[in-house]
Amino acid sequence: MAGERKVTITAIAREAGVSVPTVSRVVNGRSDVAPETRAKVEELLRHHGYRRRVQPHGDRAALLDLVFNDLDSPWAVEIIRGVEEVAHASGVGTVVSAIHDRAGAARQWMTNLRARASDGVIMVTSVLEPLLHKELTRLGVPIVVVDPAGGTAIAAPTVGATNWAGGMAATEHLLELGHRRIGFIAGPPRLLCSRARHDGYRAALEAAGVPVEEELTVPGDFYHESGFHGCRRLMELADPPTAVFAASDQMAMGAIEALRQCGLRVPQDVSVVGFDDLPEMRWVAPPLTTVRQPLAEMGKVAARTVLRQARGEEIDSPRVELATELVVRASTARRP
Amino acid sequence: MAGERKVTITAIAREAGVSVPTVSRVVNGRSDVAPETRAKVEELLRHHGYRRRVQPHGDRAALLDLVFNDLDSPWAVEIIRGVEEVAHASGVGTVVSAIHDRAGAARQWMTNLRARASDGVIMVTSVLEPLLHKELTRLGVPIVVVDPAGGTAIAAPTVGATNWAGGMAATEHLLELGHRRIGFIAGPPRLLCSRARHDGYRAALEAAGVPVEEELTVPGDFYHESGFHGCRRLMELADPPTAVFAASDQMAMGAIEALRQCGLRVPQDVSVVGFDDLPEMRWVAPPLTTVRQPLAEMGKVAARTVLRQARGEEIDSPRVELATELVVRASTARRP
Repeated sequence: MAGERKVTITAIAREAGVSVPTVSRVVNGRSDVAPETRAKVEELLRHHGYRRRVQPHGDRAALLDLVFNDLDSPWAVEIIRGVEEVAHASGVGTVVSAIHDRAGAARQWMTNLRARASDGVIMVTSVLEPLLHKELTRLGVPIVVVDPAGGTAIAAPTVGATNWAGGMAATEHLLELGHRRIGFIAGPPRLLCSRARHDGYRAALEAAGVPVEEELTVPGDFYHESGFHGCRRLMELADPPTAVFAASDQMAMGAIEALRQCGLRVPQDVSVVGFDDLPEMRWVAPPLTTVRQPLAEMGKVAARTVLRQARGEEIDSPRVELATELVVRASTARRP
Repeated sequence: MAGERKVTITAIAREAGVSVPTVSRVVNGRSDVAPETRAKVEELLRHHGYRRRVQPHGDRAALLDLVFNDLDSPWAVEIIRGVEEVAHASGVGTVVSAIHDRAGAARQWMTNLRARASDGVIMVTSVLEPLLHKELTRLGVPIVVVDPAGGTAIAAPTVGATNWAGGMAATEHLLELGHRRIGFIAGPPRLLCSRARHDGYRAALEAAGVPVEEELTVPGDFYHESGFHGCRRLMELADPPTAVFAASDQMAMGAIEALRQCGLRVPQDVSVVGFDDLPEMRWVAPPLTTVRQPLAEMGKVAARTVLRQARGEEIDSPRVELATELVVRASTARRP
């Protein structure tokens, strides 16, 4: 018998003294196996580091599970688009689910996943629920995390974006337009991506010899309303900024609405930069200058990674960050 | 043997003189069946009107296929959300695909669908490709079309929205605010939904005794740029309108950008109403008054319908239209 990555179901069946279909049933998470038999087979699968393989030429089509906490974000469709493109080309179906951060929904999803014998899981989250992770590992289902927010310590391969470089690029763009007082509406501090964007903002100011003033940073939570209130606070300062960098497009939209209500024009009076480049940002008035997160590409990389794992291949790196890119549109202009 | 809707695989196998697994293989679209056997079994399946059933308690998990032409629309995630919610609750996985209106991609998808033995298909389209439809019918896979645009003659159950009533509600809202010269930026005339929205606009004007003036209607294609150019044309009229109803949110965004470039304020100088209520429309500046299409609910109805068909149950109606709803936000105001 070859090295552990090549262990077969037949070998496991021989060692366990059961039939090949029985091992298959255990591997596929089916329920019609006696508990002691299941325990014995699972022990051997673990021992040999067995991983279920995608079977492109078998009689069952391969499936990938793509799991979101919620399907309410305009992000979601971009990630789905990337995953679907890669999976489709490999003849693999993309099963999309939402588990709503609720234990019940996650359990139901796990049951469904076992029943459909999914070949791999892509989770879009910053927090990989330990119980889910354990159960997927037990089933030998490979997992990859698409993590736009940059979670701290996820014990699975992750795909993210270069948040620090994006924060720096947005701020440099405003500096080049002559702005010196640049407001920053931050994201939630518990997310690494918020901190990275904030550090990128500070690094650009420091590199340009512009002092970092604490009053120019206001808190936000990535949602529209916090951008609205944050921008109002900035405009009420004795010496208000001439430009605002919001750490998400939604907050940038809130900031623009606040400026509109103050009678200030974007970009003639105040410039605004966002972060994400949601598809709609090219249509808003004015079209938004923002930092593009390559969400579809992140989905593609995640799909390729999980399919490689499912085929038992090595992956390149446990964490990949794809480049963000400044997209200049009409919401920024030279300092008035 | 009972009526044709109750014919079983066992009965078909007996009549064809083949084994039950062989019939199963044909039903599930697998390739390991001799051509003559397949032809004979398929003939009998057709003759008896056999439909494959969802097997919630079987050893294989049920799957639904949700198919878009493209996954580039902000609509898509709303429909996915609705379908997923209903499917998930039934333990059914939602496989999301895009076929890009390309024959090659559609064939690949069909191959994948057969291989994964999907239990039902929801297509989001205004045009049901006849070859695909024929092939799905041959496989006995039920199909439901989510058709926001209102296709003419789709030979499958469809779920749409009340476009005429929505056009009427948008126009009535502007009339109630005192507007009398109301511009209309139309959708593509080949789509029924465009005609229905236009007719709703005209009906509201006529009911209010306001003359319908041809110069106040400009053509569009639902995309941003056509809204921009259409609104420019309206503003160049000798007596420009004080309000604009655009037949899509994207065109409404384009109209607002055109007004911004003309130095006109929304809603102080010109009111704007859209159609769709994409999720982002509540964040734009100003938040958009628009007609809500219940896309998630349309997805839910489609999922329930296809699951009922898959269980061999009757459906209520071949065409269901869900109510649109006017959502009043900040882009409309009393006539100046």
